[in-house]
Amino acid sequence: MKKFVNNVENILTESLTGFGEAHSDIINVNISPDFIFRKLKSNNPKVSLISGGGSGHEPLHGGFVGYGMLDAACPGQVFSAPTPDQMEAAAKHVDNGKGVLFIVKNYSGDIMNFEMGADMLDLESQTIIVNDDVAVEDSTFTSGRRGVAGTMIVEKTVGSLAESGATLDECKKFGDHVNKMTASMGIAFTSCTVPAAGKPTFVIGSDEMEFGVGIHGEPGRKREKIRSADEIVSDLMSAILEDLKPNNNQEVLLHANGFGGTPLMELYLLFNSAKKILDQKNIKITRSLVGNFTTSLDMAGGSLTITKLDDNIIKHWDSPVHTAALRWKI
Amino acid sequence: MKKFVNNVENILTESLTGFGEAHSDIINVNISPDFIFRKLKSNNPKVSLISGGGSGHEPLHGGFVGYGMLDAACPGQVFSAPTPDQMEAAAKHVDNGKGVLFIVKNYSGDIMNFEMGADMLDLESQTIIVNDDVAVEDSTFTSGRRGVAGTMIVEKTVGSLAESGATLDECKKFGDHVNKMTASMGIAFTSCTVPAAGKPTFVIGSDEMEFGVGIHGEPGRKREKIRSADEIVSDLMSAILEDLKPNNNQEVLLHANGFGGTPLMELYLLFNSAKKILDQKNIKITRSLVGNFTTSLDMAGGSLTITKLDDNIIKHWDSPVHTAALRWKI
Repeated sequence: MKKFVNNVENILTESLTGFGEAHSDIINVNISPDFIFRKLKSNNPKVSLISGGGSGHEPLHGGFVGYGMLDAACPGQVFSAPTPDQMEAAAKHVDNGKGVLFIVKNYSGDIMNFEMGADMLDLESQTIIVNDDVAVEDSTFTSGRRGVAGTMIVEKTVGSLAESGATLDECKKFGDHVNKMTASMGIAFTSCTVPAAGKPTFVIGSDEMEFGVGIHGEPGRKREKIRSADEIVSDLMSAILEDLKPNNNQEVLLHANGFGGTPLMELYLLFNSAKKILDQKNIKITRSLVGNFTTSLDMAGGSLTITKLDDNIIKHWDSPVHTAALRWKI
Repeated sequence: MKKFVNNVENILTESLTGFGEAHSDIINVNISPDFIFRKLKSNNPKVSLISGGGSGHEPLHGGFVGYGMLDAACPGQVFSAPTPDQMEAAAKHVDNGKGVLFIVKNYSGDIMNFEMGADMLDLESQTIIVNDDVAVEDSTFTSGRRGVAGTMIVEKTVGSLAESGATLDECKKFGDHVNKMTASMGIAFTSCTVPAAGKPTFVIGSDEMEFGVGIHGEPGRKREKIRSADEIVSDLMSAILEDLKPNNNQEVLLHANGFGGTPLMELYLLFNSAKKILDQKNIKITRSLVGNFTTSLDMAGGSLTITKLDDNIIKHWDSPVHTAALRWKI
């Protein structure tokens, strides 16, 4: 296994400690129970946003803790749901009386543990379940659709709304709306290698790709021969647009996301392929994001996400944010 | 070859086009001759900073064009020096009478072509040569030491100084100073795959790493068995600190850089290992940067860079910047 590692059991703790040291101006890290929390609290009481999930998708979610986005993130072991005591401890730490909103990707383990965490709290809480992956219904770890790269778009926009002083109900409603406006799908060229397993999660031929792959290497729609970027993107876009049914002239956010092992140069090429298709369909890209934001360790491949924009989503996407992985206007 | 690609000959053009579309608020892209230039010019005349080099190291250099950093970047084909006409065209486009400062990584092809580009200009120009890699003297493409991840630290700090209205001589002198205060070294677990070659640049055993590797996969100091992160970092740090000879209590910027195929989770673990060593030696990390900033396509591995800080370097590191890959206080 080719990784920077001292002891497989300690990877998460050592990585979180490094994360805490590297971004000590923005966040603090609590070890055992593990959670990352925002260092500078808001001046006014606000709804507290907490996300989390298995590690290995960095910068999701810890990289999005800070002003204008999350108040805390609960990292589980690699590709494993965080435990309820993490959510309980994080919520108690960041709550300031306006309630807690959990943002959870739709995986059965995460849903169950976040629910249990919420039940342990004597606080008002609600949960947004993100399920933007249009590839498949029901898969290895999920009932319904999976939550993938669109999650950070929900976190950014709802984070901004919470910062503006909105109520728990308003934040919950807006998050559900952004989730509904968002659709994603991706492909894998290679498998990732989970450190504790020490070998690739799945076997794939040197000329094959997994079309519609999940962010833990779950099977997608089909295993097929590698095709050109334009052909891959054409099929990804068909699935995404079939789901979103954008109007003519619809404004969208286009997010080209890398899974961790694909160079930025290719992600911009991916973005370019997607733009060509959207141009043909008269869909207007007015916001864009390219990079490795929702990763699968070292998996080669990437995903495309589209969010249909309205004035409210635009306002809360453009607003100031100050986190380890996303920072603007601050 | 497992890449998002339509036609190997068009990768650079398609990727640059995507880059231009994704960041049209910050930069513009000129195709043939290829150069990326800052969209919003400074209100006052300033020294124009131009960097460039082979593609495949993204976000270096195009990701660093914008307010407070570079005025233009000239991307060559993958791992190939840009041609002199690119530098000529970029310089003519961005010059505003205060002279042009080229920031060039120390590779023979880059040096030669940037010199030829400068000779074609009827403008005052100077060149900063970055050679922060302490791994080896003279290697495949270089006389002397190679320029690697420290380059972006030179670009950020000199970019800030230029923005403040400093003269060409002041910028050149400061850049040489930052370069001298900066040292880097890295290791590779795997080779990258250059698209035009279609196969890995070098062969390496499943239990081996290249210690002191260059950012094009050039040989380092030795090929050896993979060791623990702490052991690897200990040796990297020894080489870096032997070069920089920091004083007790020296303030430093610590940059953990990924080569493209290594997950962020590991880069934070790498940062943590380096911090433990610096703590023992009473060297104070007061600025930090972790991520994939100077990459080698899909190579797994990473590097550590240290810059010895003084008040001037701190001031120009902390100042506002607005580029595709680095943005703060704006």
